[in-house]
Amino acid sequence: MEHINIGLFGYGIVGHGVRHIIEHTKSLNVSIEKICVKQKDKARDLSMDHFTFDKNDLLDNPKVNLIVEVIDDADAAYHIVTEALKKGKNVITANKKMVAEHLEELMLLQFETGAHLLYEASTGGSIPIIRNLEEYYDNDLLLSVHGILNSSTNYVLSRLFVDNLDYDIAIKQAQDLGYAESNPDLDIWGYDALYKLIIMAAHAYGVFAKPSQVFNHGIQNISTYDIQYAREKTWKIKQIATVRKLDDDSITLFVMPQFTDEDDSLSYVHNEYNGLYVEAAFSDKQFFQGKGAGAYPTGSCVISDISASSYDYKYEYKKYLQNKNTITYANDMVMEVYLRYYSKRNLALFEFEEISARFESEEYNYVIGLINLNKLVEMKDQINKADVLLVSTGKYF
Amino acid sequence: MEHINIGLFGYGIVGHGVRHIIEHTKSLNVSIEKICVKQKDKARDLSMDHFTFDKNDLLDNPKVNLIVEVIDDADAAYHIVTEALKKGKNVITANKKMVAEHLEELMLLQFETGAHLLYEASTGGSIPIIRNLEEYYDNDLLLSVHGILNSSTNYVLSRLFVDNLDYDIAIKQAQDLGYAESNPDLDIWGYDALYKLIIMAAHAYGVFAKPSQVFNHGIQNISTYDIQYAREKTWKIKQIATVRKLDDDSITLFVMPQFTDEDDSLSYVHNEYNGLYVEAAFSDKQFFQGKGAGAYPTGSCVISDISASSYDYKYEYKKYLQNKNTITYANDMVMEVYLRYYSKRNLALFEFEEISARFESEEYNYVIGLINLNKLVEMKDQINKADVLLVSTGKYF
Repeated sequence: MEHINIGLFGYGIVGHGVRHIIEHTKSLNVSIEKICVKQKDKARDLSMDHFTFDKNDLLDNPKVNLIVEVIDDADAAYHIVTEALKKGKNVITANKKMVAEHLEELMLLQFETGAHLLYEASTGGSIPIIRNLEEYYDNDLLLSVHGILNSSTNYVLSRLFVDNLDYDIAIKQAQDLGYAESNPDLDIWGYDALYKLIIMAAHAYGVFAKPSQVFNHGIQNISTYDIQYAREKTWKIKQIATVRKLDDDSITLFVMPQFTDEDDSLSYVHNEYNGLYVEAAFSDKQFFQGKGAGAYPTGSCVISDISASSYDYKYEYKKYLQNKNTITYANDMVMEVYLRYYSKRNLALFEFEEISARFESEEYNYVIGLINLNKLVEMKDQINKADVLLVSTGKYF
Repeated sequence: MEHINIGLFGYGIVGHGVRHIIEHTKSLNVSIEKICVKQKDKARDLSMDHFTFDKNDLLDNPKVNLIVEVIDDADAAYHIVTEALKKGKNVITANKKMVAEHLEELMLLQFETGAHLLYEASTGGSIPIIRNLEEYYDNDLLLSVHGILNSSTNYVLSRLFVDNLDYDIAIKQAQDLGYAESNPDLDIWGYDALYKLIIMAAHAYGVFAKPSQVFNHGIQNISTYDIQYAREKTWKIKQIATVRKLDDDSITLFVMPQFTDEDDSLSYVHNEYNGLYVEAAFSDKQFFQGKGAGAYPTGSCVISDISASSYDYKYEYKKYLQNKNTITYANDMVMEVYLRYYSKRNLALFEFEEISARFESEEYNYVIGLINLNKLVEMKDQINKADVLLVSTGKYF
């Protein structure tokens, strides 16, 4: 276990959490060399000699043997991470957008340079899902991974269902508690969950999907009608990210609201918690739950990666190496959905294969029917601009 | 990934499960050389050339590069496992009693011979808890691990609480479904959970506790009064195994019934499922749930170990190597308990520090109070012979 001397990029909520945990964990043989930040004129809780504004002070510093990158900006993070790997330095990042968009390249760069990149903190909050997928579940036994990956959305949905709050007030609360960004659209529209899902799918099946290929639908249009519909059936609505095996040669991914019933552990995952089901042949379903947001849960994931890094742990990308090109990404799957809409024009966006129930009133309308995921991906932009709510019933064919 | 050729010991429920999964999992580069069984005159679903009655046919067979041991008899299992390791063969076992009783020795034998022993299937059912503790949670951040580890007991308690069944009928059902042994005492009295807890504690904290040092108390005396008491408070009673940090230098272990409330995920772990909380500083609580019994869940754990073995995965016993002798086993902890008793003589077995509630009637009596775990360990044999039920409230001081 070698001594780790960190070059830390970013000193926001997560950066503070990382520093705090390092200072309070005696067994970690870890120190922080310097912290690279952007804003020169911001007041800091450490003296200025702890900081630098020049990334090369860390990247070219021979005393730094681990780069920890916890900045917000995905493009800047990409440059830091690739530069560090190319210089042979190990890297830890929590940036899900950056990892999701560049994962295949980042994997190949690790193979090429021998330096490792760990990113458990990017996905699943404090649930160690990447390592479990990477090391424990063989891909041809793995049927699906699905669950709640975005804390802000789950916090908002909990407030709507548990406290009967209005949507706008719930969003405001999530922001005040630090669970949602000042612009919560990435969370609410399902992009944050989508990035995490793409990372999970790579470690579950060795498939690298592109964000634009994957259907995501948010909760921004959720109405009291939808909540009432779910309540009458003793269901909840959760934002669920799913990766599923379609057959031996293909998998699919999607993020959308889903009804969960009383027997579903996800119904009891409230507030800032994340929850995930891993379903495999023979072992059946395993369920994991843990905090998904906040300085310490995220910081403690980063710390676990730092600790693993000190043992020279690296992701082996076993599923990718086993499956190279034999498993592909596809969207040819029929699913049952609830579609709540106001105008017939919006209903016409959806090419249903079959409609099993139809409700019309002066206030709102809904249908329940079967639709192919391919059709949803094709119409993704139009669907997400329309005032509709599409909810999966969790039935796939 | 080398080709694995297995010498299989035992062909009961789990042995059948292992063979079935191997035959149905194309990606596993695995075959079974021969199966060693005890009974010569038993009808088998495979032709006799698949079997041997001589252990040395497997242990001395150069074609066999992995021993998989899934027999019932802990002593026989111990001899097979140690002999195999000494011959330099890797071994996988599901025998929790054998592992719990000999873990330190088995660890040292691995260090000495370089061969590895994996036993994820022994503990936590299909939840990969050993690896998560081994690899992900640093011990000085880990506050506790606790949960439901025994499927038979949990099945019985689910029937009592969910279906209002009588205790004897519930036990019979558990046996009929294969969740309980023909002699269910090991499960019901908490010994099975105790063995698993000892294994978890070794990988969580690097401490090897002896079964006799640890307090275990079963549900064999649970009465309708106890169930009614819990129900009135909307609680459940679950058999919970706990390992907790007492301070920087010591941990404690115990297995006993515990009340769980509506906010506790363990309240929703029913039937043959296992559920575990891992609580750590900074990352808060993580919860894991999965099937705990049956041929396939156990078989699939064995398969995961076989797959890991093919990548030469081994437990590193990091916590032990880090903590050698600095963390010790202790029982000096005050806990709040509910004690239901009939005779005053039995009440006198318990040296309470404080009693906060007392109920007496013609039918039954109970007290709620604080007691030191040391006192329970001292009186363990007498307590477990008496017709009392001791239930933890989950409050520890």
